[in-house]
Amino acid sequence: MTKQPFIHQIRVGWADCDPAQIAYTGRLPNFALEAIDAWWETHVGDDWYRLNLDRNVGTPFVHLDLDFHSPVTPRHPLLCEVQLKKLGESSISFHVIGRQNGVDCFSGNFVNVFVVADEFVKRKAPEDIRSIVGPLIVG
Amino acid sequence: MTKQPFIHQIRVGWADCDPAQIAYTGRLPNFALEAIDAWWETHVGDDWYRLNLDRNVGTPFVHLDLDFHSPVTPRHPLLCEVQLKKLGESSISFHVIGRQNGVDCFSGNFVNVFVVADEFVKRKAPEDIRSIVGPLIVG
Amino acid sequence: MTKQPFIHQIRVGWADCDPAQIAYTGRLPNFALEAIDAWWETHVGDDWYRLNLDRNVGTPFVHLDLDFHSPVTPRHPLLCEVQLKKLGESSISFHVIGRQNGVDCFSGNFVNVFVVADEFVKRKAPEDIRSIVGPLIVG
Amino acid sequence: MTKQPFIHQIRVGWADCDPAQIAYTGRLPNFALEAIDAWWETHVGDDWYRLNLDRNVGTPFVHLDLDFHSPVTPRHPLLCEVQLKKLGESSISFHVIGRQNGVDCFSGNFVNVFVVADEFVKRKAPEDIRSIVGPLIVG
Repeated sequence: MTKQPFIHQIRVGWADCDPAQIAYTGRLPNFALEAIDAWWETHVGDDWYRLNLDRNVGTPFVHLDLDFHSPVTPRHPLLCEVQLKKLGESSISFHVIGRQNGVDCFSGNFVNVFVVADEFVKRKAPEDIRSIVGPLIVG
Repeated sequence: MTKQPFIHQIRVGWADCDPAQIAYTGRLPNFALEAIDAWWETHVGDDWYRLNLDRNVGTPFVHLDLDFHSPVTPRHPLLCEVQLKKLGESSISFHVIGRQNGVDCFSGNFVNVFVVADEFVKRKAPEDIRSIVGPLIVG
Repeated sequence: MTKQPFIHQIRVGWADCDPAQIAYTGRLPNFALEAIDAWWETHVGDDWYRLNLDRNVGTPFVHLDLDFHSPVTPRHPLLCEVQLKKLGESSISFHVIGRQNGVDCFSGNFVNVFVVADEFVKRKAPEDIRSIVGPLIVG
Repeated sequence: MTKQPFIHQIRVGWADCDPAQIAYTGRLPNFALEAIDAWWETHVGDDWYRLNLDRNVGTPFVHLDLDFHSPVTPRHPLLCEVQLKKLGESSISFHVIGRQNGVDCFSGNFVNVFVVADEFVKRKAPEDIRSIVGPLIVG
């Protein structure tokens, strides 16, 4: 059985572009982050906003890296594939690939840790989240 | 002789913060990028805007990575140290450390390539730029 | 015959929110602008990016105003209704209403002028655009 | 006796610019907001972050309007003058003018109301704030 890839679509516009007529580098991590936020919403039912405010679970970033392969422009929708790569005791890692028109534009890795949101103290991943997302790991 | 570190100061404000009451992760690469842009302005005399528009030299990013050590907040100015690490034939690499109140908040690496701006085609680093920035490499 | 209202849907997320747990004020004009950009794409076939780059037609803003009625949050999609209000000889005016969950969150007015994009000089609205958008004026 | 105008300086960069090679319209309200935030910090001692988190005083916006006179670019620093125009029982109004190189680039009006931050309920302006900022009104 193959897992359905999770794809989050983003509209890239004039607002995202710099004078080089491509999406500004600083926007690209934001696109990847939005895709991860949407991954949470789709798979767990809570996006970062609800996780933090309703469940007091925060997932601050400890690492991100990105390689840029091809410019992003408003000419095509941006399709961000989010792959869950690892679920540690209190951390979670994602790989994100941004594509336009069949071309890989950027790809990167993102590591979060679980914290008690209102104390910013590390905690284990909540059991219900672990049981939902565990099977979603992409080898 | 020691080189004077290049420090770019940024005002972090309410606008930069998310409901976790810290600067949003997606803002942090932008802070580092602004510091690199300011490094160009200070050392070469041209920021990215002038490099591109006045000299037709672009420096698109091919890579960035960041580790997040401690939250960034509006309580202190953000001091971004930019270190030139490597000047290749047609690439340039930076290390950036973001500090608040004496604490390292984030650090990361950034790699650009030189392009003919209006053609987006790789080129060698311009000679005058090479001669100015070469001696600035931080070992 | 009634005109179909133009509604552009936006995903509001954690990234858009400030420590007050609502979308930051500075994000709201950006949401309205994105909706106007999408209006162009839908009705004229060219968004601002294509208008500028492919047709050399720019539409810089000369005015915007916004009233904020109710906070915007990630709890609901943001539905932005864009109404074309006026098409002058070389200007165009929009009214935008942002709604979440049936509640008006903000509304405002936006005025652009037509320019030759690469000269930033005022020009008349192109005839084909005038003939397409003229009938879309909402009284 | 004349009052010293309050001027907040902003570095405009590549990141702020769109393919028209000028600061994107959606950035301009953000520049004005940052200037108002800095006004609070300078005159009251608390920026929005501290007002909200340390004093439980919020100042959400109910209105903003902006007229755009001349493009903003990275060629010059952006000097934002903030004038306090009115202090109502539970509201406060500002006029902001953004200038570059001696030219007025934009100007606009901004109205906030005072709320109990963690309840988002309207309140009177705190007495100490009233006494500090009252004399700063620019006729």
